[in-house]
Amino acid sequence: MPNGAMMATNGTIDKPREACGVVGIWGKEASVKVAPLCYLGLYALQHRGQESAGMVTFDGKQLWLSKGAGLVPEVFDLDSLAELPGFAGIGHVRLATQAEKHVINTQPLLVRSSYGSLAIAQNGSIVNGKELRQELLDRGTVLQTDTDSEVILNLIAQSGEADLPSAVAKILSRVRGAYALVVLGEGMLLAARDPWGNRPLCLGRLEEGYVVASESCAIANLGGELLREVQPGELLILDHAGYHTHSLDPGKKQALCAFEHVYFARPDSSIGGRNAYLVRKAIGRELAQEALVTADVVIGAPDSGMSPALGFAEAAKLPFEIGVIKNRYVGRTFLQPTPAGRKLAVRIKLNPVIEVLKGKSVAMIDDSIVRGTTSGKLIALLKEAGAREVHMYVASPPYRFPCLYGIEPSSHTELVARGRTVEELKTLIGADSLHYVSVEGLVRAIGIPKEQLCLACFTGDYPIGAPGASIDRLSDQRRE
Amino acid sequence: MPNGAMMATNGTIDKPREACGVVGIWGKEASVKVAPLCYLGLYALQHRGQESAGMVTFDGKQLWLSKGAGLVPEVFDLDSLAELPGFAGIGHVRLATQAEKHVINTQPLLVRSSYGSLAIAQNGSIVNGKELRQELLDRGTVLQTDTDSEVILNLIAQSGEADLPSAVAKILSRVRGAYALVVLGEGMLLAARDPWGNRPLCLGRLEEGYVVASESCAIANLGGELLREVQPGELLILDHAGYHTHSLDPGKKQALCAFEHVYFARPDSSIGGRNAYLVRKAIGRELAQEALVTADVVIGAPDSGMSPALGFAEAAKLPFEIGVIKNRYVGRTFLQPTPAGRKLAVRIKLNPVIEVLKGKSVAMIDDSIVRGTTSGKLIALLKEAGAREVHMYVASPPYRFPCLYGIEPSSHTELVARGRTVEELKTLIGADSLHYVSVEGLVRAIGIPKEQLCLACFTGDYPIGAPGASIDRLSDQRRE
Amino acid sequence: MPNGAMMATNGTIDKPREACGVVGIWGKEASVKVAPLCYLGLYALQHRGQESAGMVTFDGKQLWLSKGAGLVPEVFDLDSLAELPGFAGIGHVRLATQAEKHVINTQPLLVRSSYGSLAIAQNGSIVNGKELRQELLDRGTVLQTDTDSEVILNLIAQSGEADLPSAVAKILSRVRGAYALVVLGEGMLLAARDPWGNRPLCLGRLEEGYVVASESCAIANLGGELLREVQPGELLILDHAGYHTHSLDPGKKQALCAFEHVYFARPDSSIGGRNAYLVRKAIGRELAQEALVTADVVIGAPDSGMSPALGFAEAAKLPFEIGVIKNRYVGRTFLQPTPAGRKLAVRIKLNPVIEVLKGKSVAMIDDSIVRGTTSGKLIALLKEAGAREVHMYVASPPYRFPCLYGIEPSSHTELVARGRTVEELKTLIGADSLHYVSVEGLVRAIGIPKEQLCLACFTGDYPIGAPGASIDRLSDQRRE
Amino acid sequence: MPNGAMMATNGTIDKPREACGVVGIWGKEASVKVAPLCYLGLYALQHRGQESAGMVTFDGKQLWLSKGAGLVPEVFDLDSLAELPGFAGIGHVRLATQAEKHVINTQPLLVRSSYGSLAIAQNGSIVNGKELRQELLDRGTVLQTDTDSEVILNLIAQSGEADLPSAVAKILSRVRGAYALVVLGEGMLLAARDPWGNRPLCLGRLEEGYVVASESCAIANLGGELLREVQPGELLILDHAGYHTHSLDPGKKQALCAFEHVYFARPDSSIGGRNAYLVRKAIGRELAQEALVTADVVIGAPDSGMSPALGFAEAAKLPFEIGVIKNRYVGRTFLQPTPAGRKLAVRIKLNPVIEVLKGKSVAMIDDSIVRGTTSGKLIALLKEAGAREVHMYVASPPYRFPCLYGIEPSSHTELVARGRTVEELKTLIGADSLHYVSVEGLVRAIGIPKEQLCLACFTGDYPIGAPGASIDRLSDQRRE
Repeated sequence: MPNGAMMATNGTIDKPREACGVVGIWGKEASVKVAPLCYLGLYALQHRGQESAGMVTFDGKQLWLSKGAGLVPEVFDLDSLAELPGFAGIGHVRLATQAEKHVINTQPLLVRSSYGSLAIAQNGSIVNGKELRQELLDRGTVLQTDTDSEVILNLIAQSGEADLPSAVAKILSRVRGAYALVVLGEGMLLAARDPWGNRPLCLGRLEEGYVVASESCAIANLGGELLREVQPGELLILDHAGYHTHSLDPGKKQALCAFEHVYFARPDSSIGGRNAYLVRKAIGRELAQEALVTADVVIGAPDSGMSPALGFAEAAKLPFEIGVIKNRYVGRTFLQPTPAGRKLAVRIKLNPVIEVLKGKSVAMIDDSIVRGTTSGKLIALLKEAGAREVHMYVASPPYRFPCLYGIEPSSHTELVARGRTVEELKTLIGADSLHYVSVEGLVRAIGIPKEQLCLACFTGDYPIGAPGASIDRLSDQRRE
Repeated sequence: MPNGAMMATNGTIDKPREACGVVGIWGKEASVKVAPLCYLGLYALQHRGQESAGMVTFDGKQLWLSKGAGLVPEVFDLDSLAELPGFAGIGHVRLATQAEKHVINTQPLLVRSSYGSLAIAQNGSIVNGKELRQELLDRGTVLQTDTDSEVILNLIAQSGEADLPSAVAKILSRVRGAYALVVLGEGMLLAARDPWGNRPLCLGRLEEGYVVASESCAIANLGGELLREVQPGELLILDHAGYHTHSLDPGKKQALCAFEHVYFARPDSSIGGRNAYLVRKAIGRELAQEALVTADVVIGAPDSGMSPALGFAEAAKLPFEIGVIKNRYVGRTFLQPTPAGRKLAVRIKLNPVIEVLKGKSVAMIDDSIVRGTTSGKLIALLKEAGAREVHMYVASPPYRFPCLYGIEPSSHTELVARGRTVEELKTLIGADSLHYVSVEGLVRAIGIPKEQLCLACFTGDYPIGAPGASIDRLSDQRRE
Repeated sequence: MPNGAMMATNGTIDKPREACGVVGIWGKEASVKVAPLCYLGLYALQHRGQESAGMVTFDGKQLWLSKGAGLVPEVFDLDSLAELPGFAGIGHVRLATQAEKHVINTQPLLVRSSYGSLAIAQNGSIVNGKELRQELLDRGTVLQTDTDSEVILNLIAQSGEADLPSAVAKILSRVRGAYALVVLGEGMLLAARDPWGNRPLCLGRLEEGYVVASESCAIANLGGELLREVQPGELLILDHAGYHTHSLDPGKKQALCAFEHVYFARPDSSIGGRNAYLVRKAIGRELAQEALVTADVVIGAPDSGMSPALGFAEAAKLPFEIGVIKNRYVGRTFLQPTPAGRKLAVRIKLNPVIEVLKGKSVAMIDDSIVRGTTSGKLIALLKEAGAREVHMYVASPPYRFPCLYGIEPSSHTELVARGRTVEELKTLIGADSLHYVSVEGLVRAIGIPKEQLCLACFTGDYPIGAPGASIDRLSDQRRE
Repeated sequence: MPNGAMMATNGTIDKPREACGVVGIWGKEASVKVAPLCYLGLYALQHRGQESAGMVTFDGKQLWLSKGAGLVPEVFDLDSLAELPGFAGIGHVRLATQAEKHVINTQPLLVRSSYGSLAIAQNGSIVNGKELRQELLDRGTVLQTDTDSEVILNLIAQSGEADLPSAVAKILSRVRGAYALVVLGEGMLLAARDPWGNRPLCLGRLEEGYVVASESCAIANLGGELLREVQPGELLILDHAGYHTHSLDPGKKQALCAFEHVYFARPDSSIGGRNAYLVRKAIGRELAQEALVTADVVIGAPDSGMSPALGFAEAAKLPFEIGVIKNRYVGRTFLQPTPAGRKLAVRIKLNPVIEVLKGKSVAMIDDSIVRGTTSGKLIALLKEAGAREVHMYVASPPYRFPCLYGIEPSSHTELVARGRTVEELKTLIGADSLHYVSVEGLVRAIGIPKEQLCLACFTGDYPIGAPGASIDRLSDQRRE
């Protein structure tokens, strides 16, 4: 019950939200203690999911599961990590959608099958998940969760293949979607990235063995070295022999999610060979070059607008200032979602520096506008603090199409830019002017060819296709 | 993490332990609020399982799950009960064995299948569970828990029958074991009792509809009327039409668990048509008649020895006294299981009344001896308090054979009477004399023909047979 | 905050409630670990106060405090006990009145004064407390709690006496009230009992040193020997030299609280040289002899009616039966105090054994009637279960006058017998007949001369007098 | 017990730590709900104390207390705020020193006295506190806490003055120290600032009344207007008539704590008429002008080095970059303080952006060096990430003298700069060069005359003098 409360709400967050992050580590010796390493990797990926965390380890004989609701350091403590045996392991952090919040959906999943004990952790979204679920149900399968991971596990168990890698390869060929997944069996760790390369997954070498992770920052935090990205469509095996490619599903048009560079990835991560912080500064420079800039000062919307604001100020040759401070004590133990609570929340969370803003024409840079609510409040706050004019610059194109590949919000009704002109949006949020970077500017800043990026949320062009009707979820029937 | 701690230990308990209790209610109108009724029923069955509780309800459209670790009032609160929709529901309380303690094994289980959403709650033990699990794994099934319930659900889903009742009936014909189970589907509630009638299950009528429950005390607490017991091998359907028997598996020799009357059942319950409190008094009378009684006073070992002690004193025409008081503040928030803690525990838990005991020859009645540790401590306590002699009378025969049908302890190594004569036991526990009621005396007191009772723990004659090698459990691989 | 919730309510309790219990232990050697001993003593006194617990220890150099809200095992754990240094200590359990519930009023109090560090724990009530508080305030004293203990500490500190025992003796000569108190200083433990001997306090010898405690059961639980009661008006010193009487305030008429024997004391305690369980049985015998008894069976209202019911059945030569079972899982984590919750509560808490009651004329014995609500519910329950007639016998005279010496309820508005005849009470609670034991019968059963007992709650004759207007409490201004 | 854990440790923090913050609000009408306003004010001051929080309100008749351990939103919830009556109130946030951590020392204190109910909240440190405590003890006073606040309350109660303001004024004339304090009585709110003006306190006007607070950011968060600072030595009264000065203790040399501008104050606060963020940028500019700068990039040590780094980069005409990212999920629920935990902590907490640092000569700006441990780790981290050279610039002079006026650390043994040359420090932390801003540069940047600042921690010149031997604290005797 308290878990329920903890998982309950983040209603005021007005950012696109990544669903999950995964990590997998294979220790080169049986004496490697993998649990603290997994912990460290998951901590580095915490920004990709804050609602639950879990890991499964393998000690040469059996698999061990530890998972729960909450942040990584809430789910695990050092005592329990020390007790968890195993030299190989996989881990998962999750930001569940409302429908999937029930604790039963927490990953990794650990099951027993004809291939022995198996655990899986996965992020992203399977486009043909509903069809696969129905096929399983029709075949007499029982499904206990709402996860794509359970679907994949059942398909693997029913594959009829002689060995686990063949089973996984066979099943992935039937799965259409954006994903990074890790499977831990009794003797090997499998890692796979979707054939479009939509979700990131990279490979690194540690002093203690090999690692795969959603972002390179996890490898860096483990003191390791980034070897390369897992290739789109690659099924990689980590085992006693090191790592090798089991199979490679070729021929799909690449479609790396552009929002990883706009917002999701931690600034110290590299995605597609490009550092996220530097890309964000570059987007800020593009923005300044595309739009006429007349402001006195440049500020970033805290915290994600800081990097593009630095690039913007540099290109516009305007002073960069800290104009709004985010209260660092506002955390998850925040005000309850009552009207009174919401009113107090605005004042508490963001604190303008009047001496920076008073009488000034302010250029404020933010990474994106989703629902528009935060932007509106922030502009009002700046004006109350004495800003003469507020010109808003957005480090991504108008966000008009819902993501179908694992990013929230997944419904277009929550997208304020949907069906509105930039002029209408400007009025809505109360800015004196509003400027978005162009798709071309964004692509230039990212530095990856446009045809290798997924820009669906800006263009409506969905490279992996769309699912059938939305999935009728079991979660609606659960409560903790 | 507190969950782990909460579930951790009851190491000092020296009683046989019932595994579980179940309840199922079908409201006669859609306006019936079933959740508070299920709550009340589970509260009445709390003595059958204290480690987790759960319920699933059906509101005419879908099924809703609420479960967790702890006592019934810890798992549910009135606010959440009020929010849980539904006019029909099933519930479960559980006392997990160590191997099955992981929260994933908490019942009821709720799944989606080709028969729609299905929930199951079950107590008892499936003798051929291991074979059925292996069969499922071989067929490509994935198993996520250690429960027999999951095995049954998968078998149902794979049965190929046209409707749910036929599927359940078909599967139960393959299951050999002692059980009471309730299945909630989209439109009906199924209740089944094993063909041997080993585990109890009864049917009642409420003002609000019909109810099945492990014990009649749950029906009484709901203000209802006991109609009859569910028959051995009966598959009962509760639905909009009331209740009716779907099928009846006949021809098995009946074998009601005698320990229900010795210890498990709440004193106000009726099992096999006989009230438990009155049966216990009758056992006390049998004991007094079978053994030469020379004591000054009769006392009961708190609390379960009280009822037989009253019958014993009555038959022996000796004064009944309260000679030892159980500290009613000793609960689950008790001393930690350190040596220091255990030492303190004995003094705190049981308090002798010196004025009753001093210089007296004391007849102490207890319901059973399992490990013998509590008996030894109690006798030492009485002697320290001044008792001249302590004669111990046990209201069941020597407990020498482990239960294979769902009662703990399930291993003979924990049974002190195994391989020991009564004389040796007397010396071991420090009594001046030790007397057990005979099997015949027990049977007479229960008032049910011997050939319709399971007396396996006293006689070693297992009416439902024994399982193969012990199940290799998934739980060993889990940790919360 | 959760503490507040925990302390919140016991609204369904319909018994007089003792305010507190105290314990004090002086170890004979510096190597004695006093904290576990204090813990054990407090555990034995838990029935005298369930809302907070605390202890202060002395290690030869300084005093250490540990206290909190909750039951003894909730406030302390074995780890913290092991860390708490000291060979001497005092302890306190508390059942706060509503006005005093704030955690700041938790005892013992530990302060620094001109006599060095001082701690105090006290139970009972000071009749002239209000006047003493005002005197202190007028003299420039600051008061932080609502406790009499703080008043006494300030008076001691301001006494001007040369040493601590003289200061305490001087102050106690000014205090009018019913109390047992223990004071721990740097080098001695002082124990005092009010000159009327209203509140019990006894002295015992342990293997490890000497002990004073509110009840002898604490000494027994510590494995010690009861030496004698602390005399009314005695100020006892425990220190390195053993124990000795510092001073004795003589000449007050003795007035031991009769309710200790009726209800408060644990059955295994001796008060005034008489065992509480045996006294209660004797009251039951008196009752049977005073009233015409025609019932088929005798039952006790659980749990406190059991002892008198045994005596009653014995004297009336009627069968004693267990007719109502108290659910042992109903604890403090009970239903919330909503109307729905209360309704469920009655059904859950008390479970009649229909087979014992059906068609019978039942004599039900209870220790007392305070508000009358529980009696009424219980009688209704018996009748619903089929009892033909219910005759209620009460093991104390009508409770018509509020206690002014530390027992709840302290207001006559909560006493149902106030201003009602026994006939009216019978009708109110729905009994077929109602019989109270007479004052004389009660006194005979207790076995102490009437003129040495406080019977104020039955007779209105207050031996220690009454306070002025009720104290205006600081607690009204506090919230946790 | 969790309280103990919550308050336990912040051992890895290597910053000077402000002891407390205070707020006081007098609503202009009885209908003003002051509790949510106090909450908002305390939330804005959270950076001044994270270990406990509390408030006392006045509703025209009596005072109400609510306080506890933890962050502001942990101690209070909106429900309890809504229940707390009152139109006037005072509040406190606290960062206890180890010796004072016991919950009994939590502020505000609420007492009853000859002036009626009184509450006090105070920050800072009383230099002659020990002498005043001894004087009170000698006079027969009992002290229950370790706080200066309790000493002041007792002195007030014993002052013999006719009214509360006179009593406070009289007592403050005897108190030597650095403080801001608020006293709430039945009818007025008193606010006082020490005669040296060492601790900040300012006055504001709200829509709902008047407010005093440690920092102007609290007034801004309440939507109010900063009127002025409370003057050094001023005793201000807020009551139904608005606000007025009761008395002014003149003639002391002013000595505003310079560290408020260096580190403590929130960037959006104004202290002494100067905005903290702009002062910090100015210090960065001074630093750049005083030291030869040859770096490729300028970075700030997160988070407090950001502001001076911006000024430094501007003055040095070097690119400002985000070179190290602080993990925003590292909070109080962090790794336990085991060696393994500490090792993991470094990797998790600070994440270098390799692409910014690789091969570069880096100028890193931090606000101060206390123990030097964090600086050393940070420099090592930058070098591991590929920085060619790391030149460290510190936005305050060498911190060589412990603060005696309420700032931690209060012992010189924790100051790494004590007894070390800058050259030695450079070697110790592993920097390629190390530069501190000069006292003169700091003073210039603050913009307040040197003779009106307290620079004791840099110069050893203590304007308010030093206390006698350190206070022997009661806390050593307490445990929660």
